[in-house]
Amino acid sequence: MATVQTNRVHIVEVGPRDGLQNDAAQLSPAVRAELIGRLEAAGISEIEAVSFVHPQRVPQMAGAEEVVAQLGKLKANLTALILNERGFERALASGLRRVRYAFPVTEEFARRNQNQSVNEAIELAHTLIKRARHEKMSIGILLAASFGCPFAGRVAPDEVLRIAAQIAADAPDELVFADTIGVGNPVAVRTLLRGAVALGVPEMRLGGHFHNTRNTGYANAVAAIEAGAAALDSSLGGLGGCPFAPRATGNIATEDLGYLLREMGISTGLNLEALIEVGRWLSDQLGHELPGMLAQAGDF
Amino acid sequence: MATVQTNRVHIVEVGPRDGLQNDAAQLSPAVRAELIGRLEAAGISEIEAVSFVHPQRVPQMAGAEEVVAQLGKLKANLTALILNERGFERALASGLRRVRYAFPVTEEFARRNQNQSVNEAIELAHTLIKRARHEKMSIGILLAASFGCPFAGRVAPDEVLRIAAQIAADAPDELVFADTIGVGNPVAVRTLLRGAVALGVPEMRLGGHFHNTRNTGYANAVAAIEAGAAALDSSLGGLGGCPFAPRATGNIATEDLGYLLREMGISTGLNLEALIEVGRWLSDQLGHELPGMLAQAGDF
Repeated sequence: MATVQTNRVHIVEVGPRDGLQNDAAQLSPAVRAELIGRLEAAGISEIEAVSFVHPQRVPQMAGAEEVVAQLGKLKANLTALILNERGFERALASGLRRVRYAFPVTEEFARRNQNQSVNEAIELAHTLIKRARHEKMSIGILLAASFGCPFAGRVAPDEVLRIAAQIAADAPDELVFADTIGVGNPVAVRTLLRGAVALGVPEMRLGGHFHNTRNTGYANAVAAIEAGAAALDSSLGGLGGCPFAPRATGNIATEDLGYLLREMGISTGLNLEALIEVGRWLSDQLGHELPGMLAQAGDF
Repeated sequence: MATVQTNRVHIVEVGPRDGLQNDAAQLSPAVRAELIGRLEAAGISEIEAVSFVHPQRVPQMAGAEEVVAQLGKLKANLTALILNERGFERALASGLRRVRYAFPVTEEFARRNQNQSVNEAIELAHTLIKRARHEKMSIGILLAASFGCPFAGRVAPDEVLRIAAQIAADAPDELVFADTIGVGNPVAVRTLLRGAVALGVPEMRLGGHFHNTRNTGYANAVAAIEAGAAALDSSLGGLGGCPFAPRATGNIATEDLGYLLREMGISTGLNLEALIEVGRWLSDQLGHELPGMLAQAGDF
């Protein structure tokens, strides 16, 4: 198996969205905007800043428009998660120029998450990609539960790649395989990334989104970049673990990932010391520690 | 870069030695013997059970002979860590049939750890391998600080491979690259393992010993086996983190590693559920939680 040599990986910080939406604390729009500003100052060039979902469903994401409004000139680096056309419209109205549309690749999860079938989700992806093109916005598509599903169990890579091919036909700016529940492994990661590379759409950036729920997240990240991913999602401090389970972690931690990649000779543009400081500040805001380990062990 | 396809990895459980020696708790020989018996019942076929070092230096390892004496017929699966010839004699007298001799590959660490130069440490390896052969005992050599040293900083792979070549000339049963302080990365891991494979001593089992101090341990483990390691060290629950730093972890956790490898299609012979139970029992004995994550998240 060939590995891809790369000396640069693009990091997408998802702490303000995927991290915070899984935390018991509900931070105000002002604090969330401050977090995003601090992350940007620590060298992060792309931040999943908000999601435009109903505040009754995800109260941690309430006030998304306020968060964006407070960020002014940083807007160019921000992306919003959307789950439907209403979310697209809110993102557009907010002035953001990037969106990410996510849907699960398994039927029951798709139904429970967005009340649609997988085929309907793919149809909506076509529609949203067209609308984004029309508005000259950047759009990414995230395939949630690409490695395993809380309802369907293991997911066949062939099925995920069949969906990826349908998405790739429209050439969105980004296609991300997301290990939503932290059950991926390096072999499966390589299968999906190599399959996606083989679709032959070089202008579509390929990415991976890994959770470290069972300590596999960083191995999966390495597998992804060596199989052709150009971008990885991560969250500051590994934010996003359930706060009621002391050692549960959410996404892989941005600063730990930056350390790992730097040691491998791969640059990310991140300022690790600055990120550790932002993590300490965020930990104070949330009232609990974050699971990232570099902040504790220190850089080498 | 070619990767090595393997469907079986040998796990060496080091919790009773490397794990416990870094814990604030001092378990009695009887409890340590019970831990080893429980680990063996959970499918572990090789256990680093004790170290024969001076009890004033490592009080957690006091009573090593008592631990071994209580294990009776399990002895065939046990190995002892030794740091000098006195340790070899104690292991021999205890009735154990396997030893592992460890020394740091950097001068200041070698001096502080064993009061010898690296060349003296290599000479002693020659002597111990000869003595083990004479006694028909199995012997492994562990190169500590193979990736980085608390005193010398980064360690050049060429230097480690130069030492590995001198060891390999005697063909011990095992050669292990140890990331003693948790600063290795997959690129460096591959360089060392591929270099060791190229030494051309197939009867010498190659292994990796990784700590998860900065969340790189599992990625390093995957890199090692795909570059030719046939064995990996790990500790139950990731035992071995400093108990005064709540989230510090020691070795990679045996059950988390077993999960990762199983998901990759690689068998280890471990019973993950049984290991999780042994981890709960050990956590009760120590009076604190263990950092392993599978026990918390559950198997998939």
